Amino acid sequence: MRTVTTLPELRTARLSLKGTVGLVPTMGYLHEGHLSLIRQARAECEHVVVSIFVNPTQFGPNEDLSKYPRDLERDLSLIEPLGVDFVWTPTAEVMYPTGYQTWVEVEAITRPLEGSMRPGHFKGVTTVVAKLFNGVQPHKAYFGQKDAQQQTVIRQMVRDLNFTLEVVVCPTVREADGLAMSSRNKYLEGENRQAALVLFHALSAAKDLYEKGEKSAEALRTKMKEIIEAEPHARMQYVSCADFDTLEELEQVKGKALLSMAVLIGKTRLIDNFILG
Amino acid sequence: MRTVTTLPELRTARLSLKGTVGLVPTMGYLHEGHLSLIRQARAECEHVVVSIFVNPTQFGPNEDLSKYPRDLERDLSLIEPLGVDFVWTPTAEVMYPTGYQTWVEVEAITRPLEGSMRPGHFKGVTTVVAKLFNGVQPHKAYFGQKDAQQQTVIRQMVRDLNFTLEVVVCPTVREADGLAMSSRNKYLEGENRQAALVLFHALSAAKDLYEKGEKSAEALRTKMKEIIEAEPHARMQYVSCADFDTLEELEQVKGKALLSMAVLIGKTRLIDNFILG
Repeated sequence: MRTVTTLPELRTARLSLKGTVGLVPTMGYLHEGHLSLIRQARAECEHVVVSIFVNPTQFGPNEDLSKYPRDLERDLSLIEPLGVDFVWTPTAEVMYPTGYQTWVEVEAITRPLEGSMRPGHFKGVTTVVAKLFNGVQPHKAYFGQKDAQQQTVIRQMVRDLNFTLEVVVCPTVREADGLAMSSRNKYLEGENRQAALVLFHALSAAKDLYEKGEKSAEALRTKMKEIIEAEPHARMQYVSCADFDTLEELEQVKGKALLSMAVLIGKTRLIDNFILG
Repeated sequence: MRTVTTLPELRTARLSLKGTVGLVPTMGYLHEGHLSLIRQARAECEHVVVSIFVNPTQFGPNEDLSKYPRDLERDLSLIEPLGVDFVWTPTAEVMYPTGYQTWVEVEAITRPLEGSMRPGHFKGVTTVVAKLFNGVQPHKAYFGQKDAQQQTVIRQMVRDLNFTLEVVVCPTVREADGLAMSSRNKYLEGENRQAALVLFHALSAAKDLYEKGEKSAEALRTKMKEIIEAEPHARMQYVSCADFDTLEELEQVKGKALLSMAVLIGKTRLIDNFILG
């Protein structure tokens, strides 16, 4: 399995692929969630490209860029058996050379939820994903439902900028006890690992309520809030019950909706979500 | 020669082209400058696509969007003999449907010159050009040197966002007396047509000075300013002697430089430029 770093190397590798190409963009430190994306791409496309790049422009100044877990050797050994054509591992200098000055920005749907807590985050995400799309020119690109707003934002960008590719969103992969897989779970130690289940429990409780007939979005938000507040190691950042496409907070759940939340467990910021309807 | 309007029509038409594709993006009301771009694309690519779209997002609120000249029938009859595969004529609704919210923005080099006079102009240009590039997926795209800052901005965007295409910049085409061809020349009536030559004369005089050994950028700017101010129908917006790539104003002309200006002739805003070095 080849790895390429520079844009000319990428270009040569890409030109050697005939037929459909699936791209799985990652920030590395791969877990079963990433691997499920790669497997789905492998099943649906003639060729699969994985990118590994911890994108500095999507981290805020007080976020965990420098501490974000990295282990390229381990990542490559996990990818190796999956039949990937090549892995693109650009450096920050390849992606953002001196004089770099172009940004892709999605407006309304980047403002609530993660956007409200992490100003500039989605500007970094959409910019780097546009660059990955243009560099790799995939027919399909694979993202996890775990990053619910991210996939909504990327689908909006693809539609708005006329990218001729299909965004495939794959279900969140969970640990046996329900914790959504995340590279940041590595930070969870001791009691925090158990406390982190509060996201799954709160989402499950709200979904139960909904399935029993509760259609008031505020009642669902309140339920999630109560459960998070009862966990001493947890600090809620937001809970949301929003329209699945616009991400606007709902009063009543009618069509497809998104239950989502961000919670600090100790110093570790976790997000999770369930889809309703 | 086909014309296509919607994105699905475009997609079908594009998929029918095998081999290299050249794109000539235009706002219509074609003149010899546009036709020279199409001819060069025809000579260099196996297929040629022309787009005609008066892009509303690159016009400011007090600019001439509603009055911008349009004549699709005439445009198509001019393109017909040139061997173009198809013409894409999207509507504003195709390009900016309800809920549209994504923008591509180039920073530093969009700020001086046209950017300083037309806030938001280049944000509209880069967004629509990114959409045209993604929709048509050309191997080469053709722009005129007449819009000097535009081609600099687009080359920067292509580099920054990893578009895998070549930007080809073609020389400005002029009337016999030196006036740069522009769709807006249509507005020039009576004495204003003659007065409009002041741009060409000012640029020519500055270039002469330079070729005789004057390397002070300020001396070249002063020369252009004097000539424009001597024309009673002209009102100068800016004159510039800037670095060709960064568009920063120079003190001394060393490498490749851009002489450029925007001048109001009556109510018609004209731009023109010469390259030095």
